[in-house]
Amino acid sequence: VGVIFASLAASLDGYIRSSSGDMGWLNDSMRRDEDYGLSETMTRAGAYIMGATTFRESQSMFGGSATGPPTYVVTHAAPADAPPGVTFQAGNLGELSASAKAGTDKDVNVFGGGDILTQTIAAEALDELTLALIPVVLGSGTRLFGDVASETYLRLMDCQSFPSGIVLLRYERAS
Amino acid sequence: VGVIFASLAASLDGYIRSSSGDMGWLNDSMRRDEDYGLSETMTRAGAYIMGATTFRESQSMFGGSATGPPTYVVTHAAPADAPPGVTFQAGNLGELSASAKAGTDKDVNVFGGGDILTQTIAAEALDELTLALIPVVLGSGTRLFGDVASETYLRLMDCQSFPSGIVLLRYERAS
Repeated sequence: VGVIFASLAASLDGYIRSSSGDMGWLNDSMRRDEDYGLSETMTRAGAYIMGATTFRESQSMFGGSATGPPTYVVTHAAPADAPPGVTFQAGNLGELSASAKAGTDKDVNVFGGGDILTQTIAAEALDELTLALIPVVLGSGTRLFGDVASETYLRLMDCQSFPSGIVLLRYERAS
Repeated sequence: VGVIFASLAASLDGYIRSSSGDMGWLNDSMRRDEDYGLSETMTRAGAYIMGATTFRESQSMFGGSATGPPTYVVTHAAPADAPPGVTFQAGNLGELSASAKAGTDKDVNVFGGGDILTQTIAAEALDELTLALIPVVLGSGTRLFGDVASETYLRLMDCQSFPSGIVLLRYERAS
């Protein structure tokens, strides 16, 4: 049985994307000779949990025809026709995480930030959070964490800094 | 001549205070035998820069009668009478930082988070930012960083993790 994990890069002020969508802040900071472990995300993931907005964006980026790993989309407005392998669900993130875990032998990736990530943490369903903290203040953009009533403690498992100034933080769910 | 610095503790999701004002998340995480260097803030500061809300709160907490270090309050609604040692100013954070620096031989502390902190960083006026990252997700509260159009790179000077799971990050202004 796999774990539920999220693996993201964020600015120091907690944005995973700038307002303009420009990725310079990320690409200019990361260095090829530094291993942040973010690439393993793709190979680890046997299923995805994401929000409706992230799903729409990934559909338009990668196309809707190819059947990828099972994808669970959190939405209150499920379309009548779901693409193959896609499940729309309005339930809470605890239930959704259990469904996603049951649907694969590999790990489940919570893809994207905001309320989905914070709700998964608040439901104590996120087993692992890896965060690459970029030494830049963006001032605005898409937030890593959402506004969710919660107070959830995590356990720091690893902290590593690189010459680029990027800090890699790895947290696990506190039991 | 001193430097402009900020020294704060924040939750992993970037809050310096919970919605309720309860400090349990901070007090339960910090350990007496771990030195986060936050206490030196008081002894270092020869002047303060803060926002109007923070000023009002500190006045009601510590009283308005005692004359402390020079305090520069960023506000667009300056009262007619300023307490001794208090300067109300509507200018940008670059100018304000220069004024504050000129008013003391010691360092200047940007006190409180939100727009003031982010504007000071965006104006490239903040020389030093020390951040104690607490391993807790609060979900809501008073934000460390504000919504300010900017994209400002910092330089990581030091990164230290403690058995409590607190990570101490020290950044300097990138030149």
